[in-house]
Amino acid sequence: MEFKISKESIQEIENLISEGREQELLDQLKEIHYADIAEIMNELSQESASYIFNILDSEVTSEILLELDEEVREKILSNLSAKEIAEELDELDTDDAVDIISELSADKKQEVISELEDLEHAKDIVDLLRYDEDTAGGLMGKELVSVNENWSVLTCVKEMRKQAEHVSRVHSIYVVDDENRLKGRLSLKDLLTTSTTSHISDVYIPKVDSVNVNTKDVEVARIMQKYDLEAIPVVDEMGRLLGRITIDDVLDVIKEEADKDYQLAAGISQDVEANDSILVLTRARIPWLILAMIGGFVAVNVTRSFEGAMEKFRILFFFTPLIAAMAGNVGVQSSAIIVQGLANNTITGSIWRRLLKEVTLSLFNGFLLAILLMLGSHFLLNVDYIIGITVSIALISVIVIASLIGTFVPILLNKYGIDPALATGPFITTSNDIFGILIYFSIAKVILGF
Amino acid sequence: MEFKISKESIQEIENLISEGREQELLDQLKEIHYADIAEIMNELSQESASYIFNILDSEVTSEILLELDEEVREKILSNLSAKEIAEELDELDTDDAVDIISELSADKKQEVISELEDLEHAKDIVDLLRYDEDTAGGLMGKELVSVNENWSVLTCVKEMRKQAEHVSRVHSIYVVDDENRLKGRLSLKDLLTTSTTSHISDVYIPKVDSVNVNTKDVEVARIMQKYDLEAIPVVDEMGRLLGRITIDDVLDVIKEEADKDYQLAAGISQDVEANDSILVLTRARIPWLILAMIGGFVAVNVTRSFEGAMEKFRILFFFTPLIAAMAGNVGVQSSAIIVQGLANNTITGSIWRRLLKEVTLSLFNGFLLAILLMLGSHFLLNVDYIIGITVSIALISVIVIASLIGTFVPILLNKYGIDPALATGPFITTSNDIFGILIYFSIAKVILGF
Repeated sequence: MEFKISKESIQEIENLISEGREQELLDQLKEIHYADIAEIMNELSQESASYIFNILDSEVTSEILLELDEEVREKILSNLSAKEIAEELDELDTDDAVDIISELSADKKQEVISELEDLEHAKDIVDLLRYDEDTAGGLMGKELVSVNENWSVLTCVKEMRKQAEHVSRVHSIYVVDDENRLKGRLSLKDLLTTSTTSHISDVYIPKVDSVNVNTKDVEVARIMQKYDLEAIPVVDEMGRLLGRITIDDVLDVIKEEADKDYQLAAGISQDVEANDSILVLTRARIPWLILAMIGGFVAVNVTRSFEGAMEKFRILFFFTPLIAAMAGNVGVQSSAIIVQGLANNTITGSIWRRLLKEVTLSLFNGFLLAILLMLGSHFLLNVDYIIGITVSIALISVIVIASLIGTFVPILLNKYGIDPALATGPFITTSNDIFGILIYFSIAKVILGF
Repeated sequence: MEFKISKESIQEIENLISEGREQELLDQLKEIHYADIAEIMNELSQESASYIFNILDSEVTSEILLELDEEVREKILSNLSAKEIAEELDELDTDDAVDIISELSADKKQEVISELEDLEHAKDIVDLLRYDEDTAGGLMGKELVSVNENWSVLTCVKEMRKQAEHVSRVHSIYVVDDENRLKGRLSLKDLLTTSTTSHISDVYIPKVDSVNVNTKDVEVARIMQKYDLEAIPVVDEMGRLLGRITIDDVLDVIKEEADKDYQLAAGISQDVEANDSILVLTRARIPWLILAMIGGFVAVNVTRSFEGAMEKFRILFFFTPLIAAMAGNVGVQSSAIIVQGLANNTITGSIWRRLLKEVTLSLFNGFLLAILLMLGSHFLLNVDYIIGITVSIALISVIVIASLIGTFVPILLNKYGIDPALATGPFITTSNDIFGILIYFSIAKVILGF
């Protein structure tokens, strides 16, 4: 059922195109899902992609547009007239149409809108354009089925049939009053099993979850996930029904958010993927490497400030990578748990209790690792007892401090409205490297007295 | 609409319980969504949680059971008789019932199943229990609406009304032949807008996506996401309809997978959260720290093997943390992009092209960073030119090798069926620390000749 994309299948399609065997190509494409056609087009040359786009029906091409990689879509759109783009958008749900239209330049946007055929559709799109992309308003679509609380079930079914023609998937039927204020919902199932003579006001469910149009997209995602909703109505400040958000849009939000956190933790800003250009990848990666290097300069100077120990205790300097690595790893672990807890809303209780728990945990881990380090220093590395003891004591302190930094920084960032995921990855490892080395040599200095 | 959980609200509920004001408590809980009640119960003492559970209707408690934290659920279940558990399960969809029943001991499982009232439900549950948790079979539920291709629309509507009573949300109507082989689907919308005299075989859509019962859960998630499906039918090897998977189950899979990758990248095995006990958290964290420490031992010995340079070039030893940090960061960046690409199925083309790209990228980044390092060494750290040049050349090599390791290891793991996410985090940083330091001193030795 799923089309398996391969070098051969791509080559075959390129051949059909270059040999102009249009009908054969169409026959093949007919069997392939639009999401797969989009994947194929992402791999083709620009000319071939445009060729395929032009021979297909606008019913399919509009869906393909949505699925294409952004840069491929941009190229395809730049080859289309405003009228042609408008035809594609006329096929799409308003929320999807807005996603595409907002990628256009201001001039082209204007032109495309004036070419839209369905006036209601155009109004809805213009209306949606004014909402921020990362809010409920930016996610919602206008396609929904709503019925007045004062109608009978019979009128309702008739009205619904009319409305349903514009709505590809009916999730829920929303019940509104004369002012279009959301009052409740009807399930399709209820409607199927209710006699046509009853009144809507008798059968509707007055409890309905909804979100305000200004709610952040990640918050919408959290709510829909928590309450297991497949669609949620969006209302304005007066409770008037504006649109609906469906689970597939929210799925994208969840995926993007998870990908973003993961990339930030790995020291990659911006949303990049393996196939992006070297320049794009560099732009996403190098700021973090520069940060790490500046941290490295500080670490060089911190280490150098203990140069005095070189004469008698040069072995200490061999341990700095170990200390830095432990500090970095512990810090990342602590921060990751906090970042995830904040994202899932499971961080409850006071900061101080949280920090106390982290101290207990890291003392416990620190002691276990210190014992291991002592054994390792003696049996594997053959260093003096006093050195083994010194490094072990320093390790415990380093682990405690590193885990405190890892816990505290994301909580602090979150408090000030900054994405706590920034704190994981290079930021934490770099600062923990520096603090780790500083603490390590300071403790060694006290114990060994150099 | 959403209940805001707080110290005060929890305290208030504890008070109502301890003062035995059951009716007031019930009135309050009636207004709260079951997902919120579950969150409240997670925060309460075990006695209070059980108290609430006992005074609520089984219609609500069965949903609450699903939402509770695993350890709270375990305690609640251990207080219930097999008959009481069976009553809860009778309220749930088969897939949810199976999730709960599979947490029970073998004996209790047996007992509970024998107490299930609805024989069909019981059969379905027993049937589902034999599938692996991480396959389509483990995700699917038996609740679906299916109609025979030979029926008329009228028969179909009648049958559907009957079946729909057992199905909480109707996503699609599946069309099967006399052997129960999946032939296609009907949308509810089509049914609403089709005359009752037509035949199913005339109106159904013969194209329907489906998954085999043995398909891995992450693969199911990928397919449903790619094709924007809200439900997908599950078939056996003969194409017979076995059940359906809904988008909310898949959402959990996506979330869990993302969380798992994120935690692995941060050096945390097992699925833990901030509120878990210190012992659980230690078990998830310490293996990675031990790995890092063993890597640290190796790094100590590698550094020590270049002890000869200490007399003339002690400054070199101050740079080891910087080199190790750069190697670690670059490795994590490279591996993260590959891991994500593998998860999203966007890694196409040959390994060699991928590695070549990575070499180009890291050479480019390496040169930029080497220039920065040279400037920094001169102006910030005041070290000799020759040292600055040596460290810079070493840095470029270290970055190239580190990024190659970061790219190659996850691809290799993936090829042998091992989760590539294991390669990010501590594993990569530790091995890159070692290789980084080794390459750095080796190059320094060649250039400076110590």
